Amino acid sequence: MQRVRRSSNRSNISAELENLASQDAADIVVALNDDPPETAASILGRLPPDRAVQVLDEPELKGPAELLQHLAVEQAVSLLQAVSADRAAAIFRELDEPVRSQLLGRLDHETRSSIERLVAYSPGTAGSLMTTEFVSVPLSWTVGATLQHIREVERTRETVYAIYILDPADGILVRATTLRRLITGDPSASILSVSPDSKPIAVSPLMDREEVARLIAKYDLLAVPVVDEASRVLGIVTVDDIIDAMIAETTEDVQKFGGMEALERSYMDISFNEMIRKRGGWLAALFVGEMLTASVMQHYETVLAQAVVLTLFIPLIMSSGGNSGSQATSLLVRAIALQEVRPGDWWRVALKEVPTGMSLGAVLGAIGIARIALWQSAGLYNYGEHWGLIAITVGAALVGIVTFGSLAGAMLPFALKAINFDPATASAPLVATLVDVVGIVIYFSIALLFLTGTLL
Amino acid sequence: MQRVRRSSNRSNISAELENLASQDAADIVVALNDDPPETAASILGRLPPDRAVQVLDEPELKGPAELLQHLAVEQAVSLLQAVSADRAAAIFRELDEPVRSQLLGRLDHETRSSIERLVAYSPGTAGSLMTTEFVSVPLSWTVGATLQHIREVERTRETVYAIYILDPADGILVRATTLRRLITGDPSASILSVSPDSKPIAVSPLMDREEVARLIAKYDLLAVPVVDEASRVLGIVTVDDIIDAMIAETTEDVQKFGGMEALERSYMDISFNEMIRKRGGWLAALFVGEMLTASVMQHYETVLAQAVVLTLFIPLIMSSGGNSGSQATSLLVRAIALQEVRPGDWWRVALKEVPTGMSLGAVLGAIGIARIALWQSAGLYNYGEHWGLIAITVGAALVGIVTFGSLAGAMLPFALKAINFDPATASAPLVATLVDVVGIVIYFSIALLFLTGTLL
Repeated sequence: MQRVRRSSNRSNISAELENLASQDAADIVVALNDDPPETAASILGRLPPDRAVQVLDEPELKGPAELLQHLAVEQAVSLLQAVSADRAAAIFRELDEPVRSQLLGRLDHETRSSIERLVAYSPGTAGSLMTTEFVSVPLSWTVGATLQHIREVERTRETVYAIYILDPADGILVRATTLRRLITGDPSASILSVSPDSKPIAVSPLMDREEVARLIAKYDLLAVPVVDEASRVLGIVTVDDIIDAMIAETTEDVQKFGGMEALERSYMDISFNEMIRKRGGWLAALFVGEMLTASVMQHYETVLAQAVVLTLFIPLIMSSGGNSGSQATSLLVRAIALQEVRPGDWWRVALKEVPTGMSLGAVLGAIGIARIALWQSAGLYNYGEHWGLIAITVGAALVGIVTFGSLAGAMLPFALKAINFDPATASAPLVATLVDVVGIVIYFSIALLFLTGTLL
Repeated sequence: MQRVRRSSNRSNISAELENLASQDAADIVVALNDDPPETAASILGRLPPDRAVQVLDEPELKGPAELLQHLAVEQAVSLLQAVSADRAAAIFRELDEPVRSQLLGRLDHETRSSIERLVAYSPGTAGSLMTTEFVSVPLSWTVGATLQHIREVERTRETVYAIYILDPADGILVRATTLRRLITGDPSASILSVSPDSKPIAVSPLMDREEVARLIAKYDLLAVPVVDEASRVLGIVTVDDIIDAMIAETTEDVQKFGGMEALERSYMDISFNEMIRKRGGWLAALFVGEMLTASVMQHYETVLAQAVVLTLFIPLIMSSGGNSGSQATSLLVRAIALQEVRPGDWWRVALKEVPTGMSLGAVLGAIGIARIALWQSAGLYNYGEHWGLIAITVGAALVGIVTFGSLAGAMLPFALKAINFDPATASAPLVATLVDVVGIVIYFSIALLFLTGTLL
């Protein structure tokens, strides 16, 4: 794909416009994202109207609200009336006053009310993802009438994900069918003759997007209807919106696991202040927690003064606890998200982590002991006459700390879930911090056990 | 959803069968996954054939290969011929010999050759995800003939994602259209009259599933054709297969970021040995890397012996470097995956991370200095007469280490990408290990700078 150079003067805009006119909407988006907002808005405003609508409909387009503010009001209004309702609502969420009220007031009644309804749902819910544009017919209709309706009334729709069949008396969703089934039916037969015998799967507008994604994946749907308490259809969440939501969810999960608040914008677009806020909060909280290590070490100051050699291994031993904890946490965060383990399974997980941690600790302990023995015998460093006891202390501490790290890391997501937090809040740095404090206690306790009377 | 209790005797199987018969395939899968394999196979074998095929087609069904081995050969063969080709290939990948050859030999020619072709693609590629079942027609056909073909020949297909239009001479893909467009067309007109004017987007069978997901999301497709070098269609990757692949990809990414090899099975199903292998490799590698900290500290042993008080802050300072590095890595791993930043942008990222790291370090440094001053003045601990200098050493070291951690964490994914590694290999523990060694050097260098002549 060819990147278009930044351009801001008129003749460059014309050149870029000509270059883009024949491209796919998604590719135009890539080019516009590289332009300054004024240039991008100017190009958007000069594209053929249907192409401009397609471009504005792409969730990948950066800062659509800002682009609209650079356009003439009539043009912005006509674009907003033509894009899908879910996209228009997403744009309105980002529009600033007074432009927001100004544009909203100029929209036709139908568009305005559907946008107002969608904007009310909080981000990340099915309601905020859904589009209010879907095909529905009363259950009294025939196959032929439904096909005719799709041909004529719904002809602007690019994809018919499903056809929802409603009870005409109260608007309640009774069945759903597909275009595929519709074309095989007898045109004069009832629409019910080409629909499955069961009520379609539907979701509440408050359902989390991750849950919606799981349902769509589980039942291989192209769209899922969003219904109110009375089973009336409010809108549909389509598979392409869910894919976008899943990509955003993965980004959030990875950022949270990295030990920070999830960013709401892309890395390059975020301001310095926001970056400091999103990272500084967790970093400071972890720092304050980690201060406990200094207090614990103060407690062992006589040991430290007597056997400085023990301090050499503090980073090595503590990082191993943090690393094994980070592994266990990442495993359990995903296992809980995929519902492979349920909250009540915590003890089964504990029974699995303890022997795993002990074995992993034994492997690291053996490497640690070999390292000390090797350095001592090769004359690379002199750990003193009690080097053998020091090696055993390090090895035993590794078994204890890796076991504790694996167990604590695995239990943390369960604990968070139990107090109604998202298990994905359990981050690698959080586990490492938790494990560090106990790690020091384990190390010095084992040292006191093995070395009292010799080194201590 | 109601969980079905484990049952193994005949009467229980009958009861469970009756209970399940009316349920959706996805719900039957949930119940079978909780049963021992023999019971699940027995239930699968006694479901109505079309229902059994739907159940076997669900990627969520655990151990389908093992279930088939418990069934009579004729039954297994008829199920394999009826499920989608991509699913059959996935099952064959897990079948053991001699059952594998035995079943393959009994399949009809068409099914066998499409399975053999699919099995050859390595897991995670478009080829391994695609199904060979799709609707294609020659470009000489009319709209009416195509509709008739879909009604009659393709009537078993639940969803028609797209209709691919091929050049009859060489089988080359020329256009694609949708059922939606087809039904609005004039039945006697050419199929080309209802298809867009451009060649459809297609992928190579070797393309990574993450790349395919990005394309499908970018162009809002329901399916993407997989073509060979000559543009002949080999199969299609559908949006529901991509969602399953994305869920698997997120799990892999989180596990890798946690510092381990990604598991191929669910947490509860994985064997002890495999768990040790997947976690132990990285843990041991990180441990060997972290050993450098012991060597570096040996280098500073005189400092350590003279100023034991400095050791109290080692875990605190080093964990802060690791935490800031983990944040930066998680940000950049995702930003690179989403193509928000390109490999050439590394210096722009560096220019953003250095001031961010310095500011974050300053915040932590201020907290650290306040902590030491508070403990000293409150009489909680006596850091000696030079406590002010120690506090400044800790504060300055935090600025240096957090800046270095942020920069190193942000650059690591770029470095991995540059040597053709997956940037997602950059894990929180890997960053922490890299930062720890340099962190110690920074800490002791600053200590020597500020404390020589007083404490040292």
